[in-house]
Amino acid sequence: MCAGVIHLSNSLPNCSTIIMNVPIWPLHKANRVKRLVVSTYQAVSGAGAWGLYELEQQQRAFAAGSEITKEKFPHQIFNNLFSHNTTIGPNGYNEEEMKMVNETRKIFADTRIAISATCIRVPVPRAHCESINIEFERPMTPEQVRKILSTAPGVRVVDDNENNHFPMPLEASGQDDVLVGRIRQDMSREDGRGIDIFIAGDQIRKGAATNAVQIAEKLL
Amino acid sequence: MCAGVIHLSNSLPNCSTIIMNVPIWPLHKANRVKRLVVSTYQAVSGAGAWGLYELEQQQRAFAAGSEITKEKFPHQIFNNLFSHNTTIGPNGYNEEEMKMVNETRKIFADTRIAISATCIRVPVPRAHCESINIEFERPMTPEQVRKILSTAPGVRVVDDNENNHFPMPLEASGQDDVLVGRIRQDMSREDGRGIDIFIAGDQIRKGAATNAVQIAEKLL
Repeated sequence: MCAGVIHLSNSLPNCSTIIMNVPIWPLHKANRVKRLVVSTYQAVSGAGAWGLYELEQQQRAFAAGSEITKEKFPHQIFNNLFSHNTTIGPNGYNEEEMKMVNETRKIFADTRIAISATCIRVPVPRAHCESINIEFERPMTPEQVRKILSTAPGVRVVDDNENNHFPMPLEASGQDDVLVGRIRQDMSREDGRGIDIFIAGDQIRKGAATNAVQIAEKLL
Repeated sequence: MCAGVIHLSNSLPNCSTIIMNVPIWPLHKANRVKRLVVSTYQAVSGAGAWGLYELEQQQRAFAAGSEITKEKFPHQIFNNLFSHNTTIGPNGYNEEEMKMVNETRKIFADTRIAISATCIRVPVPRAHCESINIEFERPMTPEQVRKILSTAPGVRVVDDNENNHFPMPLEASGQDDVLVGRIRQDMSREDGRGIDIFIAGDQIRKGAATNAVQIAEKLL
């Protein structure tokens, strides 16, 4: 489940997917994305308003020296993190991870795009982060990526190496833009076709209905 | 920096590196690892005892309704996460990430192994997690990986799909073993040479001197 505090219909995309697709789509249009390896850092509010409540209850119990109890999450989320608690399918991926694969293919109208996702819930109230390793069809430089993203709709480049200032949930919360940083050439590839990025986006804003309209406008 | 509460000499490996290498090494011996794409979820105690103190101070300030102040971390860590705050080099990777590359190559005595790492600090007191995408030289199945890891020294397989029970910092804390789960065939590769895993390990235990001895025994 990935409903935020706003309840979404099934026709709206999964929030981890949409946050990823906002910066990946303009890159894909410029140089086809062949493969994505993504690991998420998903906020508790992605599970619903109760997720926020449960994290805060556990934070307050800790500060008060009381016993930390869990209600809806399968494990304690305070001072912990865990694999997204949707059902694991026969291929070993959970439902959230498969949504990132299937919905991206649908939104991009490209069934060839290969994706492996690992979805993790972290003790953060709001805004999802994602570490994304991108393989392009042709070589791509960090400078090219920055140039494309600097004018891409719904994206804000936050990539200040000197001050170690990159996308964070605290700064993405309440923002419409998906923050993108840590833009660098994937040093594990010699062919120049790899780029790494780290992003943060408010899944409550991005999951909202206005966003579905934005996507429709851009893609259709 | 990655010292835990125990101060290490420079001759001991970086804690994110060693936690990754404990399960990767026995797999590498069975089927050469060509490439790793790793994203970390690093506990605050990896920065030193002050990291624990700073997280807890911020947790208590929140519960008391006081202002949340930061002291040593460059950003608020409570209810947030951020890119590891070591210096970013000319290739866009930070020092922690480059340690994962260089030290793994040294420990494995294999300069060919290609690694791209993204190191992230999360609001968890103790035990680092890592999401690792592995490319082997030859095809490898999840069953082969499970078999190798089930008898590998310092590893405990925690991979219960039915009960959604996988490696978590809370369960890795205070343990000598690195917990390994989410073992699955990388669905983004068609050649069967990809495996995804998610691991958790107590960087304070694994960073300790006894561990250096363990590694020396295994590798030399």
